[in-house]
Amino acid sequence: MQVWRVNVQEQSFSQEPIPAHWQTLGGRGLLAQILVDEVDPTCEPLGPNNKLIFAPGLLVGHMLSSCDRISVGGKSPLTGGIKESNAGGSTGLAMAYLGIKALIIEGQPTMPGWWILHLSKQGARWENAAEYAGMGVYKAAPALLERYGDKAAIALIGPGGEMKLSSAGIQNLDKDKTPSRINARGGLGAVMGSKGLKAIIFDKEGCDKPPIADNKAFRAAQKVFNKELMAHPQTQSYADYGTAAMTRMTNTFGAIPTRNFSDGQFEGADKISGEFMRELLLQRGGASETTHACMAGCTIRCSNIFGGEDGEEIVSPVEYETIGLMGANLGIDSLDTIARMNWEVNDMGLDSIEVGAALGVAAEAGLMAWGDGERALALTREIRTGSTLGRVLGNGASTVGKVYGIERVPVVKGQAISAYDPRAIKGTGVTYATSPQGADHTCGLTIRAKIDHLDPLIQQEVSRNAQCNMAGYDTLGACVFAGFGFAAAPGTIRDLLNARYGWQVGDAILPELGRKTIELEREFNRRAGFTKEHDRLPEWMTREPLKPHNAVFDVPHEHLDTIFEGG
Amino acid sequence: MQVWRVNVQEQSFSQEPIPAHWQTLGGRGLLAQILVDEVDPTCEPLGPNNKLIFAPGLLVGHMLSSCDRISVGGKSPLTGGIKESNAGGSTGLAMAYLGIKALIIEGQPTMPGWWILHLSKQGARWENAAEYAGMGVYKAAPALLERYGDKAAIALIGPGGEMKLSSAGIQNLDKDKTPSRINARGGLGAVMGSKGLKAIIFDKEGCDKPPIADNKAFRAAQKVFNKELMAHPQTQSYADYGTAAMTRMTNTFGAIPTRNFSDGQFEGADKISGEFMRELLLQRGGASETTHACMAGCTIRCSNIFGGEDGEEIVSPVEYETIGLMGANLGIDSLDTIARMNWEVNDMGLDSIEVGAALGVAAEAGLMAWGDGERALALTREIRTGSTLGRVLGNGASTVGKVYGIERVPVVKGQAISAYDPRAIKGTGVTYATSPQGADHTCGLTIRAKIDHLDPLIQQEVSRNAQCNMAGYDTLGACVFAGFGFAAAPGTIRDLLNARYGWQVGDAILPELGRKTIELEREFNRRAGFTKEHDRLPEWMTREPLKPHNAVFDVPHEHLDTIFEGG
Repeated sequence: MQVWRVNVQEQSFSQEPIPAHWQTLGGRGLLAQILVDEVDPTCEPLGPNNKLIFAPGLLVGHMLSSCDRISVGGKSPLTGGIKESNAGGSTGLAMAYLGIKALIIEGQPTMPGWWILHLSKQGARWENAAEYAGMGVYKAAPALLERYGDKAAIALIGPGGEMKLSSAGIQNLDKDKTPSRINARGGLGAVMGSKGLKAIIFDKEGCDKPPIADNKAFRAAQKVFNKELMAHPQTQSYADYGTAAMTRMTNTFGAIPTRNFSDGQFEGADKISGEFMRELLLQRGGASETTHACMAGCTIRCSNIFGGEDGEEIVSPVEYETIGLMGANLGIDSLDTIARMNWEVNDMGLDSIEVGAALGVAAEAGLMAWGDGERALALTREIRTGSTLGRVLGNGASTVGKVYGIERVPVVKGQAISAYDPRAIKGTGVTYATSPQGADHTCGLTIRAKIDHLDPLIQQEVSRNAQCNMAGYDTLGACVFAGFGFAAAPGTIRDLLNARYGWQVGDAILPELGRKTIELEREFNRRAGFTKEHDRLPEWMTREPLKPHNAVFDVPHEHLDTIFEGG
Repeated sequence: MQVWRVNVQEQSFSQEPIPAHWQTLGGRGLLAQILVDEVDPTCEPLGPNNKLIFAPGLLVGHMLSSCDRISVGGKSPLTGGIKESNAGGSTGLAMAYLGIKALIIEGQPTMPGWWILHLSKQGARWENAAEYAGMGVYKAAPALLERYGDKAAIALIGPGGEMKLSSAGIQNLDKDKTPSRINARGGLGAVMGSKGLKAIIFDKEGCDKPPIADNKAFRAAQKVFNKELMAHPQTQSYADYGTAAMTRMTNTFGAIPTRNFSDGQFEGADKISGEFMRELLLQRGGASETTHACMAGCTIRCSNIFGGEDGEEIVSPVEYETIGLMGANLGIDSLDTIARMNWEVNDMGLDSIEVGAALGVAAEAGLMAWGDGERALALTREIRTGSTLGRVLGNGASTVGKVYGIERVPVVKGQAISAYDPRAIKGTGVTYATSPQGADHTCGLTIRAKIDHLDPLIQQEVSRNAQCNMAGYDTLGACVFAGFGFAAAPGTIRDLLNARYGWQVGDAILPELGRKTIELEREFNRRAGFTKEHDRLPEWMTREPLKPHNAVFDVPHEHLDTIFEGG
């Protein structure tokens, strides 16, 4: 494998050997190392000194179930700190076939205009993308596939990234060529926009599978992993309900964000639950699918296709986070409305969590009434117009709060809190507060831990373990759900890595990778000017009780400040 | 004297003795000490845990020329750090007569609504301010004077503070009862708005002059000070041209912000110069005055009254900073347009520097053409409507840049750079970068130093001395122009303080007060999460050369980081 380096100002390209200390990393961990090594942490995120980096995880390239994820990173225009955002789809696999350990995109174009970066066995070439400018991803992706062949993997931005909005992500094609797997969080789509790139084509034509040092050992470990994954009870639950299975759970826990995080239970929760959705989709038939894989080879199939009453597809997939932030958080109990809003943000290439939270703050500011789905949809569509209101919303919850003078803004380090209220699931609150990524449940969700989630004094260790494990999975390229298999057969991670690379890593490799990743990320943030004072939830969450438990976030500051010293 | 403490939630009031370590401070220094002692630096600036504090300087109350200034402070909603903003006018004098060492306003109303806080010898009372809600200060001030008698001093907010805009300040009456002396910078008007206060009435009826320990010594020192002040050549220049005298000077230095800080010289500079303005006003006559004092007893009289072609007053005063940011910075060369924009921001109670810089970024984003005065005036008026666009502009340059995805934003710590481009006057750039207040020329302007302003290696000491002196003046309640007198007779500060309070301070009291103040402010900011990475100019100013010198800001980071270690 090699490092592929691209300069968008000179439109130059080089292939470089991998530095020794990058070899043992991939995905999120490799991004952190490259950013620490190469990017000034105080740089302007949308300026020429930031870099946009794509890196597949260490296990990517072999169609291991749920293990072909692509990590994208850079300095975040949303948080001002380090950012990694990973996604499923086909980009990671294509990069592994191309032998790209990391794609590093540098510089800034001196002239306006949009470009396609085409990467293949023959190297890199630039093509003018003027005809795709302003195009939503649902229109742009098929057009690009038409042009480059339907075997191409594509990472592209929508109008949101072109407008350099801080909620803009990067869309990737799922295994069925739908641009729905988004590196959503932290504004990396805006960074791609600042580099003048509308799309990157990864054409693996003529490439071989990535080599495996010991194929027999690899397949043996894969077999154990698959067996455990299939045997896990959650695997069936996710296949049936997708991540929407979480709705009832969080509502029961009193942790579903409701009307801008002013309540932990939503009276309309059943109508936006995974169970309700499954029945609805089965009934509607047509394009609807309750079960759908985003990556080739995935046995979890947590995705779905949401069809309307006429059976026509509205959007794929509808995830729990979108249901939480664009549903309960806005007082909306219509899955059809949520699905339509979801289509809009997907097409614009925006993070549905950030936009949902932004709309919640906008509602608090009087821009919409709670539960007014038509208005919420209209406000979502407003983003596409590029109007001032649209741009305010598209820059996320923090900007909306700033513009309208609202104090109740659910963000940490400027990034929206996801669909688990940290006052009811305090371990996840510790994750939100202390993760170098800003508020992000995928950095260490603790809701499944068998503990009292309201006890402030026992959350530090739970969050630390979750954060280290998740940073490890993100470095492997493994989906959180792969953890169902890995947790039951922990030796398989060691065996897969050793078989793949001819390494001799030990049993603790997962938390070791995770710990190293987080330490690199914290180093970047320190040099960007972050301190322990940034590792805090919003002040109002520490004094405003959340129904039904009437809990505030009261984990001691010291537990937040020392979290990565222990363990 | 006493500390007066008010809680706006309970509408309670108390008078307290002054803690020993507060006794020797006033104005900016006392604010810093109180904020360090009483306010959690991580609190939400517009939340219940911030405090709004008024403190007259140590020499306030005796009509010493240019020495009756009022400092207002709190945690800034614009910078997120400590904030002091001082103003002339009559508020400081009235507080000194009332014996108020500091007025500390705490809490947050639980119900919406606007209040007047009335302070007098009899204590505090609250009156409903519903009838003044939404009213500009030019209408509200006379109405309040009618109600409370024209001897009252008044500090009030306009619609900007009511809307909690981050560019909102607090207006004070000048000696002629015009609400034109604004604690402009850092959004303290928004903090006052968050406390539910439309106005504070300081009624000194029945109060005696503040006591003087040794009246004879005080008058002797005052005489020396006055003589030196009057003899200083700049005194006449400011009396003739006001601060607008700076226009030609900065243009000659290549330091006038032009078209969003993209040039250091403006082709229309002569038409917005102090000399041009003086001729214009003399010619127009009517209400126009080229010479005007803002505080009783001031011999500098740097203020003016700007009349239109018909001789009718447009606004008072037109200051250099407004000319720079609302004129050259927008490519506008019409003093009439600038004066009308100035009236608008004054009436709304907004900082003309912040709004001017915001409009410059807005122009960069395509919202207006350079030099289009009609559009600039319309955009300024848009703020009053409370529209999304208006709120974006009213929240200042940083928010405008964020919303429209503009990198060229002239701010430090979120606060707009004033009308001296730091690439041409690098010592002032050091001040902008390292002042705990964010970019602010009044924290240490270096343009009058007899040095090479383009040499990056000699600016640290110049800025440090200027910053310490200015923090000292701000603690005394002395206008920067009082420095013309004090600099020529430095012993007078010592003598005035010792005579006033019966102290025994030494010759170095000015920089000692300044140094202590800055150290307290840095302590507050450190605890708020600020690091040396925040003591930087915008990255683009370090790589984008400024005409005519083609200079970038290249003072070494180490000089910024160690500035307060030396001296």
